[in-house]
Amino acid sequence: MARTLITGGLVITASDELHVDVLVDGGRVVAMATHDSHGWTADHVIDATGKYVIPGGVDGHTHMEMPFGGTFASDTFETGTRAAAWGGTTTIIDFAIQSKGGSLGEGLDAWHEKADGQCAIDYAFHMIMSDVNESSLREMDGLVSAGVTSFKLFTAYPGVFLSDDGQILRAMQRAGANGGLVMTHAENGLAIDVLVEQALARGERDPRHHGEVRKALLEAEATHRVIKLSQVAGSPLYVVHVSAQEAVAELARARDEGLPVFGETCPQYLFLSTDNLAEPDFEGAKYVCSTPLRPKEHQEALWRGLRTNDLQVVSTDHCPFCFKGQKEMGRGDFSKIPNGMPGVETRMDLLHQAVVDGHISRRRWIEIACAAPARMFGLYPKKGTIAPGADADIVIYDPDAEQIMSAETHHMNVDYSAYEGKRVVGRVETVLSRGVPVIDNRAYVGKAGHGVYLPRGICQYTN
Amino acid sequence: MARTLITGGLVITASDELHVDVLVDGGRVVAMATHDSHGWTADHVIDATGKYVIPGGVDGHTHMEMPFGGTFASDTFETGTRAAAWGGTTTIIDFAIQSKGGSLGEGLDAWHEKADGQCAIDYAFHMIMSDVNESSLREMDGLVSAGVTSFKLFTAYPGVFLSDDGQILRAMQRAGANGGLVMTHAENGLAIDVLVEQALARGERDPRHHGEVRKALLEAEATHRVIKLSQVAGSPLYVVHVSAQEAVAELARARDEGLPVFGETCPQYLFLSTDNLAEPDFEGAKYVCSTPLRPKEHQEALWRGLRTNDLQVVSTDHCPFCFKGQKEMGRGDFSKIPNGMPGVETRMDLLHQAVVDGHISRRRWIEIACAAPARMFGLYPKKGTIAPGADADIVIYDPDAEQIMSAETHHMNVDYSAYEGKRVVGRVETVLSRGVPVIDNRAYVGKAGHGVYLPRGICQYTN
Amino acid sequence: MARTLITGGLVITASDELHVDVLVDGGRVVAMATHDSHGWTADHVIDATGKYVIPGGVDGHTHMEMPFGGTFASDTFETGTRAAAWGGTTTIIDFAIQSKGGSLGEGLDAWHEKADGQCAIDYAFHMIMSDVNESSLREMDGLVSAGVTSFKLFTAYPGVFLSDDGQILRAMQRAGANGGLVMTHAENGLAIDVLVEQALARGERDPRHHGEVRKALLEAEATHRVIKLSQVAGSPLYVVHVSAQEAVAELARARDEGLPVFGETCPQYLFLSTDNLAEPDFEGAKYVCSTPLRPKEHQEALWRGLRTNDLQVVSTDHCPFCFKGQKEMGRGDFSKIPNGMPGVETRMDLLHQAVVDGHISRRRWIEIACAAPARMFGLYPKKGTIAPGADADIVIYDPDAEQIMSAETHHMNVDYSAYEGKRVVGRVETVLSRGVPVIDNRAYVGKAGHGVYLPRGICQYTN
Amino acid sequence: MARTLITGGLVITASDELHVDVLVDGGRVVAMATHDSHGWTADHVIDATGKYVIPGGVDGHTHMEMPFGGTFASDTFETGTRAAAWGGTTTIIDFAIQSKGGSLGEGLDAWHEKADGQCAIDYAFHMIMSDVNESSLREMDGLVSAGVTSFKLFTAYPGVFLSDDGQILRAMQRAGANGGLVMTHAENGLAIDVLVEQALARGERDPRHHGEVRKALLEAEATHRVIKLSQVAGSPLYVVHVSAQEAVAELARARDEGLPVFGETCPQYLFLSTDNLAEPDFEGAKYVCSTPLRPKEHQEALWRGLRTNDLQVVSTDHCPFCFKGQKEMGRGDFSKIPNGMPGVETRMDLLHQAVVDGHISRRRWIEIACAAPARMFGLYPKKGTIAPGADADIVIYDPDAEQIMSAETHHMNVDYSAYEGKRVVGRVETVLSRGVPVIDNRAYVGKAGHGVYLPRGICQYTN
Repeated sequence: MARTLITGGLVITASDELHVDVLVDGGRVVAMATHDSHGWTADHVIDATGKYVIPGGVDGHTHMEMPFGGTFASDTFETGTRAAAWGGTTTIIDFAIQSKGGSLGEGLDAWHEKADGQCAIDYAFHMIMSDVNESSLREMDGLVSAGVTSFKLFTAYPGVFLSDDGQILRAMQRAGANGGLVMTHAENGLAIDVLVEQALARGERDPRHHGEVRKALLEAEATHRVIKLSQVAGSPLYVVHVSAQEAVAELARARDEGLPVFGETCPQYLFLSTDNLAEPDFEGAKYVCSTPLRPKEHQEALWRGLRTNDLQVVSTDHCPFCFKGQKEMGRGDFSKIPNGMPGVETRMDLLHQAVVDGHISRRRWIEIACAAPARMFGLYPKKGTIAPGADADIVIYDPDAEQIMSAETHHMNVDYSAYEGKRVVGRVETVLSRGVPVIDNRAYVGKAGHGVYLPRGICQYTN
Repeated sequence: MARTLITGGLVITASDELHVDVLVDGGRVVAMATHDSHGWTADHVIDATGKYVIPGGVDGHTHMEMPFGGTFASDTFETGTRAAAWGGTTTIIDFAIQSKGGSLGEGLDAWHEKADGQCAIDYAFHMIMSDVNESSLREMDGLVSAGVTSFKLFTAYPGVFLSDDGQILRAMQRAGANGGLVMTHAENGLAIDVLVEQALARGERDPRHHGEVRKALLEAEATHRVIKLSQVAGSPLYVVHVSAQEAVAELARARDEGLPVFGETCPQYLFLSTDNLAEPDFEGAKYVCSTPLRPKEHQEALWRGLRTNDLQVVSTDHCPFCFKGQKEMGRGDFSKIPNGMPGVETRMDLLHQAVVDGHISRRRWIEIACAAPARMFGLYPKKGTIAPGADADIVIYDPDAEQIMSAETHHMNVDYSAYEGKRVVGRVETVLSRGVPVIDNRAYVGKAGHGVYLPRGICQYTN
Repeated sequence: MARTLITGGLVITASDELHVDVLVDGGRVVAMATHDSHGWTADHVIDATGKYVIPGGVDGHTHMEMPFGGTFASDTFETGTRAAAWGGTTTIIDFAIQSKGGSLGEGLDAWHEKADGQCAIDYAFHMIMSDVNESSLREMDGLVSAGVTSFKLFTAYPGVFLSDDGQILRAMQRAGANGGLVMTHAENGLAIDVLVEQALARGERDPRHHGEVRKALLEAEATHRVIKLSQVAGSPLYVVHVSAQEAVAELARARDEGLPVFGETCPQYLFLSTDNLAEPDFEGAKYVCSTPLRPKEHQEALWRGLRTNDLQVVSTDHCPFCFKGQKEMGRGDFSKIPNGMPGVETRMDLLHQAVVDGHISRRRWIEIACAAPARMFGLYPKKGTIAPGADADIVIYDPDAEQIMSAETHHMNVDYSAYEGKRVVGRVETVLSRGVPVIDNRAYVGKAGHGVYLPRGICQYTN
Repeated sequence: MARTLITGGLVITASDELHVDVLVDGGRVVAMATHDSHGWTADHVIDATGKYVIPGGVDGHTHMEMPFGGTFASDTFETGTRAAAWGGTTTIIDFAIQSKGGSLGEGLDAWHEKADGQCAIDYAFHMIMSDVNESSLREMDGLVSAGVTSFKLFTAYPGVFLSDDGQILRAMQRAGANGGLVMTHAENGLAIDVLVEQALARGERDPRHHGEVRKALLEAEATHRVIKLSQVAGSPLYVVHVSAQEAVAELARARDEGLPVFGETCPQYLFLSTDNLAEPDFEGAKYVCSTPLRPKEHQEALWRGLRTNDLQVVSTDHCPFCFKGQKEMGRGDFSKIPNGMPGVETRMDLLHQAVVDGHISRRRWIEIACAAPARMFGLYPKKGTIAPGADADIVIYDPDAEQIMSAETHHMNVDYSAYEGKRVVGRVETVLSRGVPVIDNRAYVGKAGHGVYLPRGICQYTN
């Protein structure tokens, strides 16, 4: 395999900003040195002068081809991972789903089948548990050994994904014993469903009502609840897609007590709000996801949580549905709008914009988007950083380029952009995946099947 | 009806300590005056010199003849209200129970039948909702109008009393609209049942394990949850039998935010602990109740909560089961021990001992035991105080007498005392119920059927 | 002395609302009875049908004739107590001041001299300690015995009233031992003086800058500090004129911990804001007082604090300075504006308006304005309630009358009203002081010298 | 200058644990590479197989030769920095002191004179401000430009170091503008001095009373106060030697709000307690320092604070006084015992023991002892990490060696060890300072004068 030398750039990791050259060989970073100290030669030299050299993004939360309400998320593993690469992300962790009545293994097999040979970048799996029982609890141990080390449980979606508190406790206990990490979608779904029914009965049927019935207090409540259950179980906890300031406060309180509790938020909660859900002509449907977008004032709490490390990870919850034909299923009944938004391509850029805007530092950008998800999900330092021995998943990032986000130019297989027309500073220029160019100077040079499955270790914040 | 003059005593109410004489006529207090200012004559004169003249106790939480696990609480309305009178309590509020599949009305009728003509003192009813559905929700309005203004819901006892969060929210919404007060037994029963099953499987079968599996964190969790649900519903909330300091903290937090959230504790949590549950030879079974007794260090938090008004009411949760034949049903399996303890007779004395011990003031004694439950449940000032116009439910209390608590001397129909051998200072001497003596100088002179049913108004802390 | 019967009204105290008749004899309430039960005769009968019968107000914080910055508060004890009576207040507690270098006794003597023979209503004294030293500390014990049981210390006004933290601790220790109550003006005066100097140097010289430099955080800081010092000293603490929501939060936190910490606010903080301080043409000077008025959003925290009992007392901090000639001293330099506002006459009415507005209940109105200050400062139940044995300080209050507040109609000796043009519902009709009419159907019938000095007991919330 | 290759070790930084080789040239790390990927040659090869390769420690808080109460700390810059090197520390930041009435510049000059040519390792200075006035405030700007970017202020030691709150605010404002970092010794010294005087008057004269009078609440109070002052000033804040759990709670609360507030603790607070202060025969004097040692239960809060990043730095506050002749000055009067303890040599080992004990992770060890102080005080990545471009301040650490701490074997110039007889796992083997060996296989090979003065940049957590 060819040797590549990346020279002249500013290498930014979660911990450091260093003007060093990076030598890649055999798909891995093998050495780093000050520019003047070495006489390295290489097959390929990438001149990164004036650019950032950053680890490829790790998106810890995607749903490619996910079935939801009779339809499927519109990105396949092929289109979705290609779009991810365009956006500077070189690893995704997608959610395999256990069917009600099915086993974890069957669910995992099905997702392997979808992904195998399709991906432009490396990928791994979490496991959604839809049916916690003696058998699926036992299966958890095997999955951890096999590299699927995180298990998502829902306090929402009664009849579909919801586990009751006894089931959640059992899964947490098992994870506490086998090293697994329980992830939760924390909203009180039973209470929300009451409010949904009542809203529809009152004739409140537009997308904005989706945001109104899924109350911040009910996210906070469920967040508190799963924290307490994890405390009883003696297990760590990762709360996905935190959007309400009250939920951040619960996480902060738990972390102040020293509990191994973690929180993820997503760009949509940081950049969008209920104002978008209220867009007329059913356009608000584009922004329907759960947890829902919140009023603007919640954003500051999320940014603060990211700065104070009460939130550790920014993932995308990428789960796109086209406006035409998919989102439209919920015209006249917001509860029928498929829940989910596109985002796998835009995360790194939006978070760089947050650096420009002063919300976070450059190193924190890399931490929340690359290093922390890699550590959280047992992939570090193979993924998530640039260091001798790490996979050469590297992005050459132009911090000064400007771009305008648009469905016309993006590469996700979805007919709208949630950020249509938004101008951001910073752009991916070149992307290596294990040393191999996937994006080369803004041209896609990758191929489906380059990406390999990544068995993961256990959470590195708790061991 | 005869006029009675109570003279020379110190009248203590929740707000005042006054050396005044009290004139009773027609079953009510009609006047109060300084000793020297009046020339009142009366048919009966009670010389209360050196004694306290206090309102009769209001016990807001009793379970006479309650069915539980195939048996019944051992006190009937007859024996239980007689014992209450012996202890200086002149009003009880018992819990009528809706059966699964039955209506609220049927449950209420059944309890009326049990109580009618049996009681030595006045009584009222709360309603336990075991089956929240469209029909029972509608019934709530009628019950409020008819004087049953409080509704108890359980987050514990799955399959028996537990309502799910959606049902609880609906009931709270209805109460928020009709003036009713939702009461909750706040423990995460689904999680607790998992721990029960696991403990039994590990061979942990003694009474003390009852306390270990019903974790304080799971009481705190459920307390937080029902607070949030009531906040969403816009309804007030009364949490029964709070025993864990973490639950008190949740109430304090909510009350600091100005939420109409209230908490009750019971003497057993203030005076007993897991040390009692651990008594050998299955004696611990005497102290099995839910929420369970907690380690001793929780007591100080409860006393503090009573002083800071984060807890407002001390009721008994009187629900006695004889050790022989009833508690013994759980030998070898703590989960089969009937949950409940006797207490209706000992509450006023134990709380006076708390005055002696310096935990609370005399006025606070009367507030938490008489005035606050009367206000909370819509009976004030008819009950709970001594004032012109109030029912003449009056206790002449000797603050200096000593007594030793014992099953041999108590009047509750149960074969043990939870406070066997405990020496306390203070004793009921004479008790009037609507002006009529029930206890006269330590002799029972009451009769079954004197007590009448009290339709109640709505909670007076929230209107 | 004549017997007076007040008949037909609704007697409202901190604890009760009763339709009872009140019999007054020898300057005291001697009896209360239901209307139909008695056959009382009296020299005077006041028909209170349709009216409230309430205890006379107790204003725990006034500064009659107080020297400040080279001038004196414009109300004398004569004019000020007359105005108080007009407003339904029958007791004031004024602040005697120790001079730097002088003794407590000399200060107290001087204030006795000012008040003696001048007052229309009863009065008592707190003691301001300007010079904490061995001698003045020793004097504290004697003052407590003599009925001056509260001592005010300042963390503000360096060089004038400020005591350093060591002095404050010593005074608290002494009070902790002798039963005295330390009151504090809690603002970090040393820090504020820096900000004052810097603001003036920047040319920020208008009244509104008074509010800007005296920052809420610096009130909260000092509040926290005196709480901690009192905790170290083992003494109770009463924080005067709390205006910042952050300070309320500190009190709430301390009270949750069970500390004997109390807080007072004033009508100006509940009804006025920095908007008033910003009134043009130097009109803002009318509202200059310390702690300063805060932005409107603080008001809700104060109301909530009053409801949750994190604040216990509403006093006036009555310290009027005429706009002409007095407030004007600070034209061009806000730091020279005499600090203080009129209010002794308007407190009861403004707080009744708060009842009408739904901020507080009727009973809470009486509690914060009458009963709680009386208890706090050792005057209850002689003052602050209506009960057999209490002084007959009684107000007949018309809850339906409307009035418009104005300097043209008020009776305070000051040339402006802080509430000019404000329409309020409710009005004092008749006022008795120890059974003697002072206001009779909206006519002043009192006289200077009727009011007597009240030696006080110690704080009744802590013993 | 010679090239050195460190091979075969586990390189541990705050962010990574990598099996890589490190190439040192010209006093700096020039390259790092996987073991098999390079063919580097070097003049010296250090085989670190089985060892840790860690950054040299950065001790952010020492007091060499500090004058205190008529004597001087017993370590000179020569003896103290040599001992530091023995313990794996390669940078110290000592405190230059402004005299009352003197300028900052004079104080700095005096400390330069003490250190110049004496140090075995590199050193920098903080500035203690004893006299905040217009002149010294102006000087601050120049010091920041010249690399003295942090300024220590005291709320303790009235008459010696104490600044009043106005002075502290002014210094914070200046630092907020010029990039400086205000450090505070946070104890309420005015209140403490009252308690000291009272304790001595009661005959409480032993070392343990030092701990009793310097109350945790008074540390918490001052911590809260300086946080609020920094919030008003808009400046960052670094609280030195935090020892009380209540103070940690104040920091946590502030950090949850997103304030740029930082906290340091020291090994003595983590490993010692009031039990040591209570050692008989005046031995407790060895442990007299301020803030004082606390009861053992505070330790867990400090460890948790280090884990949750509510505390960021562990420094030593190294300020040794010999038991004979120095500590003994306080026999019969604890207030005369020189305040301070030795520690510069033992910090890295004690914190490694904390890794062994499970309190912190290996990376956190390096972060709190090396990287965080370097970032906090503007020295990173030159100091505090191992990375291409960084100074080659490197320690070869044997994680398996055992040692017993003792005054007989330590190299600090003080006649006792605070950890006499304590067995710890882990030991420094070799230390490079800018590539030059100072300790070579447990032999001192350094020399006075090798260490150079380090002008510092501003705090890297706030820019």
